[in-house]
This record gives sequence, C-alpha cells and structure tokens, in this order.
Amino acid sequence: MGGSVFGKIVRLSTFGESHGKAIGGVVDGFPAGFELDFDKIQLELDRRKPGQSKLVSQRKESDQVEFLSGIFEGKTTGAPIGFLIQNEDARSKDYSHLKDTYRPSHADFTYDKKFGIRDYRGGGRSSARETACRVVAGAMAKQFLESKKIKILSYVDQIGNVKDSFDYTIDKLENVQFDHLINLRESNEIRALSKSSVQEMKDLVGEIKKSGDTIGGSVRTIVFGAPIGLGEPSFDKLHAELGKAMLSINAVKGFEIGSGFDCVTMKGSQHNDIFKEDFSTKTNFSGGVQGGISNGMPIYFRTAFKPVATILRPQESVNSKGKASIIEGKGRHDACVVPRAVPIVDAMTALVLMDFMLRA
Amino acid sequence: MGGSVFGKIVRLSTFGESHGKAIGGVVDGFPAGFELDFDKIQLELDRRKPGQSKLVSQRKESDQVEFLSGIFEGKTTGAPIGFLIQNEDARSKDYSHLKDTYRPSHADFTYDKKFGIRDYRGGGRSSARETACRVVAGAMAKQFLESKKIKILSYVDQIGNVKDSFDYTIDKLENVQFDHLINLRESNEIRALSKSSVQEMKDLVGEIKKSGDTIGGSVRTIVFGAPIGLGEPSFDKLHAELGKAMLSINAVKGFEIGSGFDCVTMKGSQHNDIFKEDFSTKTNFSGGVQGGISNGMPIYFRTAFKPVATILRPQESVNSKGKASIIEGKGRHDACVVPRAVPIVDAMTALVLMDFMLRA
Amino acid sequence: MGGSVFGKIVRLSTFGESHGKAIGGVVDGFPAGFELDFDKIQLELDRRKPGQSKLVSQRKESDQVEFLSGIFEGKTTGAPIGFLIQNEDARSKDYSHLKDTYRPSHADFTYDKKFGIRDYRGGGRSSARETACRVVAGAMAKQFLESKKIKILSYVDQIGNVKDSFDYTIDKLENVQFDHLINLRESNEIRALSKSSVQEMKDLVGEIKKSGDTIGGSVRTIVFGAPIGLGEPSFDKLHAELGKAMLSINAVKGFEIGSGFDCVTMKGSQHNDIFKEDFSTKTNFSGGVQGGISNGMPIYFRTAFKPVATILRPQESVNSKGKASIIEGKGRHDACVVPRAVPIVDAMTALVLMDFMLRA
Amino acid sequence: MGGSVFGKIVRLSTFGESHGKAIGGVVDGFPAGFELDFDKIQLELDRRKPGQSKLVSQRKESDQVEFLSGIFEGKTTGAPIGFLIQNEDARSKDYSHLKDTYRPSHADFTYDKKFGIRDYRGGGRSSARETACRVVAGAMAKQFLESKKIKILSYVDQIGNVKDSFDYTIDKLENVQFDHLINLRESNEIRALSKSSVQEMKDLVGEIKKSGDTIGGSVRTIVFGAPIGLGEPSFDKLHAELGKAMLSINAVKGFEIGSGFDCVTMKGSQHNDIFKEDFSTKTNFSGGVQGGISNGMPIYFRTAFKPVATILRPQESVNSKGKASIIEGKGRHDACVVPRAVPIVDAMTALVLMDFMLRA
Repeated sequence: MGGSVFGKIVRLSTFGESHGKAIGGVVDGFPAGFELDFDKIQLELDRRKPGQSKLVSQRKESDQVEFLSGIFEGKTTGAPIGFLIQNEDARSKDYSHLKDTYRPSHADFTYDKKFGIRDYRGGGRSSARETACRVVAGAMAKQFLESKKIKILSYVDQIGNVKDSFDYTIDKLENVQFDHLINLRESNEIRALSKSSVQEMKDLVGEIKKSGDTIGGSVRTIVFGAPIGLGEPSFDKLHAELGKAMLSINAVKGFEIGSGFDCVTMKGSQHNDIFKEDFSTKTNFSGGVQGGISNGMPIYFRTAFKPVATILRPQESVNSKGKASIIEGKGRHDACVVPRAVPIVDAMTALVLMDFMLRA
Repeated sequence: MGGSVFGKIVRLSTFGESHGKAIGGVVDGFPAGFELDFDKIQLELDRRKPGQSKLVSQRKESDQVEFLSGIFEGKTTGAPIGFLIQNEDARSKDYSHLKDTYRPSHADFTYDKKFGIRDYRGGGRSSARETACRVVAGAMAKQFLESKKIKILSYVDQIGNVKDSFDYTIDKLENVQFDHLINLRESNEIRALSKSSVQEMKDLVGEIKKSGDTIGGSVRTIVFGAPIGLGEPSFDKLHAELGKAMLSINAVKGFEIGSGFDCVTMKGSQHNDIFKEDFSTKTNFSGGVQGGISNGMPIYFRTAFKPVATILRPQESVNSKGKASIIEGKGRHDACVVPRAVPIVDAMTALVLMDFMLRA
Repeated sequence: MGGSVFGKIVRLSTFGESHGKAIGGVVDGFPAGFELDFDKIQLELDRRKPGQSKLVSQRKESDQVEFLSGIFEGKTTGAPIGFLIQNEDARSKDYSHLKDTYRPSHADFTYDKKFGIRDYRGGGRSSARETACRVVAGAMAKQFLESKKIKILSYVDQIGNVKDSFDYTIDKLENVQFDHLINLRESNEIRALSKSSVQEMKDLVGEIKKSGDTIGGSVRTIVFGAPIGLGEPSFDKLHAELGKAMLSINAVKGFEIGSGFDCVTMKGSQHNDIFKEDFSTKTNFSGGVQGGISNGMPIYFRTAFKPVATILRPQESVNSKGKASIIEGKGRHDACVVPRAVPIVDAMTALVLMDFMLRA
Repeated sequence: MGGSVFGKIVRLSTFGESHGKAIGGVVDGFPAGFELDFDKIQLELDRRKPGQSKLVSQRKESDQVEFLSGIFEGKTTGAPIGFLIQNEDARSKDYSHLKDTYRPSHADFTYDKKFGIRDYRGGGRSSARETACRVVAGAMAKQFLESKKIKILSYVDQIGNVKDSFDYTIDKLENVQFDHLINLRESNEIRALSKSSVQEMKDLVGEIKKSGDTIGGSVRTIVFGAPIGLGEPSFDKLHAELGKAMLSINAVKGFEIGSGFDCVTMKGSQHNDIFKEDFSTKTNFSGGVQGGISNGMPIYFRTAFKPVATILRPQESVNSKGKASIIEGKGRHDACVVPRAVPIVDAMTALVLMDFMLRA
C-alpha cells in the first residue's frame, strides 16, 4: 500500500517526481455545485513556488495548474477533479552527480533500500516538489471552508533563535481582523507577522545563505471560525489528524497543539481552560480542541521544520557502495524553507478540516 | 464515520465506556500461526491500570483481558481476535453530580454538542479507560515485533521541570542493553530511567498530589532494531503515523521526532546526519527516519502529556445551560498520568510499527 | 489485511468462530441519539438461528445478543456499539473426526493452506455462524432506514426448480402493502410469498432432507422507499456494493440486479425504462439503479445460494495428507439454507443502504 | 466520499469525463522494480477503443496513454504512477440536444438529482469512457500477474440468444493452451472462442445494428494459474470483490461464479467438488473459490451486460422539467458492447487478483 492517498471523505491522490514530465493529483469526493476561484488556487501555488524572492530557491517553475475534470461551467460536478502541473525547469543534469551518492539527511538512502531503485534526479518522489499538489487541493479546500466562514492563518513563528512576537493569546485574537493579519504576513517575504521580527529573520537568513548553510524554523497556524464538533473520538482526534498531516510535510520534525510541549511543566490548575457562560473559555491552552473535538475556540498549533538538508558547502558522505566521498550541494536551494512552507501548512490544515466537516 | 478503527493492515477496532458493562476490541489482520504469551499481555495491562502505587489513581480494576476468538490451541489463526475487559469498579454514583456540568478541559462540552447526548459517567467514551484496549492490542503487536528483534522502550522523560538525565544519543545507546534499560525503568514507580531523577519526580508528584493539583509530563520512546524501510512516501510517513498515534492518546498535546522542536534553531551543517561507511550515521538528529522511512538507526520520539484535567480542588465551571457553578473533582484520580501512559505509548508505537512491517 | 471489517461510514467489525467462547462485533459510526428497539434486533436474530422449524438445523442456540457499549439510556451515543453472542450449544466433539479431513466444497482446505492452521471445529471462522453478527448490525441499520421510510423485503424466490410465483413487477408493487408482504412471508417456514409455491417448496425440502441431501435456492430482495441518489459513480456503484455484500454471505454464487442475466437476451428498445412525467419509469429493468445511483424506483435483486455442502451421506474426500477417505456429515445441518438466509440478506442490504445514506 | 478509488493495497484513482480535456488515473502501491511493457498496455487500450470494427462505435479516439510518473528507466519505482489519455474526438455538439433531456436507462436523471449539476456531454463522468483508465491500470496488473504465471482469459460467452459453445469444464481446460485460446479470441471481432458461434453472433449484431437497436450479452472469464489462498474470510471474499469489480463496470446487471445461478436447482451431492489426492477437485462448481479463498483450480465467472441504452431510433422520454419528449440517439454508438467489454473485464479481474496477491 503506497502512501500517496490522503483523507477519508475528500481523498487526495497525488503523483509525480521532481524531474518527471509532470506532477498532479486527483481530488475525489469534493462536493458538487461549488464555484471555484481558479485565480486564487494559482495564487496559493505561486506563494509556494521557488524564485519568489532572493531568500528562497531561484529555481524557475511557472507552476501553472491545469484542471482536467470534475468541473463544468466553472462549478464542481461531484466527479473527481484531476489536475496537472508540468515540470518545466527540470535541469536533470544538476543531479547526475548524485546517481551513486546518498546525500546526508535526505531520503536517498532509505528510498534506495526500500524500493531497490531510485529516481535520483532531485530527490524524485521524495522531493518537496510533491507539496505543490497538496497546495492545489488545499486551496480548493480553503475556498470550501471560507464559504463556511472558517479561515486559516499560518505564519512564520520562528527562524533559528528569532521568534515572531505576535501575541496569539485569546485576548489578542478577539481584537484583530483576519484580513489584517493576512496583509501583515503578505507584506514581507518571510511571512512573519511582526515587523520587528521580520527584519531580524531576514538578516539571519541572509547571513546563513551567504555561509552556504541552512537554518530551521517553525510555522504557527491559527484557525478562526471552526465550528464545534470537528474531530472524532479515540483514534481520529482532530489534532491527531492535523498532526499526521503536518508531520507528513517534508522536513517537519515536530507538532504541538495549544500549550504543546509547554504543558509538561504546567499544573492542572493553570492549564484548565475555565468556561465562561457562553461556553467560550477564558484561556485556550487546549488549542481549540478538547477530547479530540473542536470546541469553537480558535484552533492553533505549531509545526517545526528542520534546516534544509542540502547545503552549499562540502560535506562528508558515502556512495551507494559505502565508500566515503565528499559532496557539495549544487543547484538552487532554499537557505530556509519556512516562508515557502506557509502555504503548504495552510493547505494541509484545510484538507484536514474539510474532511472532518464532511464527516460530521 | 466514527474514529474507533486504527491501522491499515492490522486493524484495531475498539469499543466501550468508562462505566459501561465492558470495554473491548477486535484485531483484524494479525498474522496466523503466531504463539501469543497471554501472561505478558496481561502484564502490560497491569502496568497501565490504576492503583499500582500511591502516586496514581486508587481506582481498583482487576482489568483481566479475556480473548474470545482468533486463537486456537494457543496460536493465532488469522481470524479476527476479539477481546473483552469487564468494568468492575464502576462507581457510577461518583459521577452523578456531573450530569449537567461541563468539567473544564474535559470532553464533556464537545461530546455533548457534537452528539447531542452524553454518557456523563466518568467521561464515557472520552475516558482514558479506552486506552486499556490499545494496550491489549499493542501488547500483541509488541510480541510480534520482538519475534523480529524489534524492541520498544518508552520511559518518563520529564515531569514538571524535572528531567530524566538518561543520555539517549547514539554513542550511549550503542553501549547499553535493552533489558537493562527495562529493568531500570521497572525498578521505580515513575518509570523513569535515571535514579537521581526518579526521586525528584516522586517528590514533585507527591507534593502536587497533596495540593490537590496535577502536573504534566513527557514520555520518550526509543525503538531498537527497526529494519530499514518502514514508512511510506508522501502522506503515510513513518513519523506522521507515529505522530497521529501518539496524539490520539488522551491528554497528549505534542509530538516530536529526532531533534524535534530543537531543529528550529539548528543549522543544516549541524543537523545533517553524516553517513559512516556501513550506512549508519554519526549523529541521529533524524530520529531514525529519513524521508518518512526508517533508516535502520534507533527511532526516537517524545510525547507531551498535559496535566490531568480533574483536580481535587474547587474550580469555576458552567453547567449545560451556561450557568456558572463550582465543581470539585471527586473520586480517585492521577496527580500525574505519565507513569501509566508509558505502556500506552509503547502499545501505540507497536501497532504503528507492526502495521508498517506488514505493509512493507 | 483481514476481511472482517465492512462499510465505510458505518463500519462493522466482526469476530468469532463457530465453536469459540462467543462471537460478536463492533459497529462504529452509527449516528448518535437513535433509539434502538432491542426486541426487534433479537427478533431478527431469532429468525436466523437454527432450530426454528423441522426444515432447518436443530442445533440449539439461544443466540441472545448482549450490547456492551455505545448506548446510554436507550439511545445510541455516537460511540462504537460493541455486542456479544455467547456460543452455547457448541458440541465440539461432533467435529473431532474432521481434524484431519477436508470436507468437499467447504473452506477446510483453503483455510488450512492459506493460514497454515485451522480451527476445525464446525468450520471455525468460515462457519455461517459469523452471519449472526451481520444480522445484529443489519437489524440496527434496518431500524435506521425505517425511520427514513426505507423498507426491505427479502423472501425465498426459488428452491430447486420450484419458483415463488409472486409478481414483483412495478404494476404489482404499486398495489401491495409492505406489511402485508411481510405477513405473507412470516406466515410460512419457507419465507416465500405465494402460498401455492410454499407447499411445493416444503415438500421438496422434506424429500431432500429425507434422502440426506441438500438443495440450492435463491432469495429475492425488494427495497421500497429508497430515495434518489444512493450510490456513487465509478467503482462504488450501489449495485456493486450490494453485490459484494451478498456475495460475501456464505454459500452465495450469484447476484443480479433488475433484469439481471435476462438482460443478455434483451434489446435496448425493450430494456430501456421509459420515464413518465413524474420521473418514475414505466418499467423497471434497471432494478431501481441507473449509472450506479438509485433512481427512486423499487430496488430489486436476486441472490443465489448453493446447496449446503454438508450432506448426511457418505462422500469421497481426502485427508490433510491427500489420502482418500470417506466422510459423512454428522450433527445437525440444514437441508436448504435459504429460509434462514432471508434475514442475513436483509441485514447486508440494510448495512449497504445505510452506509450510502450517510455517504450522500 | 466519492467512488473513484479502487483497491486496498494497489489503489487506482481515476478521473475524467467523456468530453473533458483528458481522462486519467493514479496507481498507488504498485511494487517497485517491475519492468512494464508499454506497448502491451497500449494494445489493451486499443482493444477497448471504439472504431475497431464495423460492429462497434465509429468514434475515433487514438487513446494514447501517456505515463507521467512512477517509472524510471523503464521500471516502476514504487512511487504512484500517474497517467493521462487525451480526449481527442470529442464532438460536444453531438450532445447539446441532451442538455435538458434525460435519456432512458442512462445516468442523466440520477446524476442530475444527486449532484444538482450535470456534465451532459456524452454522459460526462457516467460515460463508459472512464473504463479506459481501468484498462490501463488493469494492463499493468495483468503484466504483474503474468510474471507470477497467472493468466486471465475473458471472452464473449453470449450475445442475445447465441451462446459460445466453448466447453470450459475442468476436463476441457486441462487440455488447452492459454495462448491458443487467446489466438482464437483475437481472431474474430466478436471476441468469442468458438468459430461456429462467432458467425451467428456477427449476424445477430449486424441485424440489430441495422434496425437501430442494441442487444445484451455476457462475458465469461477464466483465470488460469491462480495460487491457493487469494481472498479473505468474511466480507472480503475473493468472489465478493470480483463481483463488486464487475458490477462496477457500466451496463453490468449480473455476476455469477462457478455454478452461479445454476446452483439454485442443484443438490449438494451433485454440487460438491470431490477432492482428488493432489487436492485438485474432480468437478469445479465452486469456480475455484471455496470459503471466499482460491483453491488452486481455475477461477471462472460470468458477467452480464445489458443492451446499450442509446438506440438509434425515436424513444419517448422526458426533459428535466418532466415534459414528455421524443429523443433519438445520434452519434456513433455500439449495437453490442460486449466485444469491447472483454478487455475491461480482464482489467478489473487483474486489479482484484493483484490486490489480493499483495494482501496475502
């Protein structure tokens, strides 16, 4: 059983390698009669693609999504929605030197051992290029959720030691406009929220880039307007599915909801979210989820991304025969992936929430 | 679609409420011809149950598992394995005061709103009692894995601010015996590994308990002997399924694999795990998983548990009509859940790994 | 992956062997707040059990179903519903002579080869005893469907060469009352509809039984009141899932919907169901399903059951070493299974329809 | 949940409408390292396509399949295999007259009511054009099975009242060569096996075509070389999944395995397949499946196809407002679909068997 199908009611099936002819996917189970805004879908895709700013990879891909089915006169028909993104700027030559080499902390070794064969060009199936298909499907899901007044905000929360100073506690969130937050985020190439942090982050990434190195980061997501009742008891808890979704994104090493790892040091008397008379809660350490089910409060969580494994300096490695060698990243790579990860995190969040909406 | 079925090849379906007649489950897809050690299964269950020490809940449940099918002359037959655990010490009276009250940071409110009906006795389906069924199935999976030389060690890694000082880096792990670690863990009621930490943790929990409060904690898991190749590309990455499994356990707020959230502040040149000539790696920030697939190194991850929501002191709350009220936990509750969570984490780990073994 | 989980939204997981301690199941995903009539569920089970009349097996099983979870104060809670049926009259001795023998046209040989181990007592997992669990879950589904005005009528349509003469064409169905048909069916131990056929069928079965032989038969099912829109395009067509469900019942060799195999000799100009102005159709060769989706007309199909494989006369066979032997059925067996199959067909129909109701 | 995903281990996800840009699919879970013969895949597709002979639809589609992923240097990589077939000869104008009309015994009415929107061009998603994707995936599965010595032979068994006279009983099968049967079948445009039947069938179809009508037919399938052990107990019996697969093909109204509906009139003493000392059976009324699991004998079953609903003569119908109208089929349609159905039945058979091979 492969691992390229996601979701239970709305099922996304993706395919495609970094340097094949095309990547694409099929979304089965999307409700009929929904009018999609295709420009908005393309926009999300543009936000993921490389080459947007000096900070990220300069690979040029037009990443135009083409829809092939399931849509008639602008509306979804209930039939599966097939889509395609051509691979354009696939400089396969860039990768020929990797044919017999396992890059450290990449999937080269594990894919080779698992499958006995490896499309070594740009990581093949293990490349983050696959996430473009998630963004397409997620952008569709986002539009569906927006039609139900559910809005998703992901933003860069930390890069290296620099933290975004936006205050996401309940009191703060009551007084901000979603659109304003989106504008804040889109006003800078880091996709952070607080101006002061942005400059520091840019400086840090620039410095890292210059040194041929890479740096980790984290993305925080806040979901506004989720209804009560998303998620299922026991195994399919809302935050369990969100966790799986985020951890399935390339380079993610951690996921936490609400208080997250901070809960370890907290007492029950601090951590419990006391109800108000309207059933909202005074605090929101639960992160909008109790017993695995959304409680109507903002849902928030955080996703940790490791530093990109490809660095532009010599590293020790071994070839497929176990012989030591020195490799050095070539091509165009990100020094920090989190600004481009923001639309991917958004997309996976949307897919999970939409699936639970339709399960409920 | 309910959320009480787990796994793809080996599927566990559980049922049962805290104060119903019985809880139980069905394991479908367990390979035929496997000789189960039933005493060992019961032992795992005993390790989860309340009343084991002064530190944990004094609820008395004999928690005897009874197997009903799928086993013939001591061996699995390939048919579904049904099992049952009677609920014995179900003092339903303890909970009648909760009929119309929503306990803070419990699932009372969300279940009531989602389903329109609520078995309020002890949390009903949302009670952690359900995890006993996971332990039964997980204990079976553990035996299957052990027959393949795969061993799982979970232990209490932190309670409040007290951290276990066991060094789980690669160098250390090469020189310890698995059985010795198990002995260390089982020698103390905290289920931590380092003696010095244990006493401090016990003191802390005792103190917290005395004050009628509760405290969070975390569990670390190390998997020894996992073969290369577990996990699938894209959505069903090994750590994504592990994450979902852990996050589905009651009270869990966070999951991290390998370097986890620490990766946020790391550089690629530090974080990359350099290969040795035998394809093992010098460091193991990847946590034994690269590209979503196990690489043969020890797999390790950490799971954060929030403080138990039921505290034995008065708390503000609201009733089901939104009227403010004061509630106070009664009955027998844990001041810190992590010692009892250890076998549950073990169990879910085993279920995930076994499922991937059979998928591969 | 075992084969003991059925359904997508409402998932039934069953377990249990013919001669184990108990059989049972878990229904996950049944909607909350539904008031079940437990007597009616038991009644369906009674209709399936052996020993109801002289015509069927005299095995005595009280077959009392016990519900263990998912129900609170008489209503479903949305949590999984676990249930149990104890095995009482399990005369294991009756089967010891089969330990090393493969009975012709039973599953003895295939189970032994597939699993390498076999619970030979009464067929173990392959016994039709497993269908009792389907009847329990199906009876719950039937009640759900009845609350939506959907009614299911299965009846014995043919035994050997004797056909029931009930006219199930559209014109006829418009003028009969569902309850009247149920009464007709329940008024005789064959569970056929037309009095004249019943006596002939009884005579035939009696004669067959006397000769120690068995005889095949078929069951016709008519669903009244199904809404337009059940079923999904492509692979999950309504009649494809119905077909799978029926073919999964022990001893079934064929399934046909609407015109069924008769369509082979028909012309399009005959077979096409012409619409009336209210979108009902003048004929119903489609059997209530077009393009895999219900069209609001009665859904009808037919299921063929082979003669019971256990016959009470000597037969040639081989033992597990391939040595020729003579075996002779002992114990209490049905000469014709279709009267008892009626509630099983009803149950599987109900499970399929309910699942599609909740998918739609 | 849509219905366009098929299979459990090898999962086929299809998309595309009759008159959209393209149709296609994704196969996830196909084993790595398999060398596919792409010409053979195209050949299967050619055998399904319209315009092959005078007897079938003259629609011209080159139906060239293009593979987009999952294949590297001619071999499968274990990654999902995406493929595309462009729609070329889509004369949408042909269908504009159907915009507001429901064609009898088509899916127009049910799709419109279910989804509230309908791609009326050529049946949209409900068109049998979708089966081309099944043929592509099935052709891959066939090659996989052939590498395991499993061979599938489907052929036209009956058209109208004309039956193919090929004797498929065990004795006959022992003495024929698979390749010879394939040659026999491919030597005629009907795809029947016995020369005498072929001419009669051709005459019949020619006559029917001349009269603007259509005629039903059936396809028989024989699987040679299937190992013992395919299929799972209870719900996922081999013939239950085969039945679902066949019934999901457009126009299919019935499925029977082994003795099929003939079993209704048979006695146990006739129907039981007596073992020989090598565990093969003297007769094969079971059709190669006992207790839902293959027993090593040839698997054979029969699938009934109704007459094509589009006839080239005036028919009464109603429009979407319920007004009576007269419609008349235009365009290029088959008078009898079964010759073109043969590769589709082959394909679905292969997908089911391969899935069970990998489950076992």
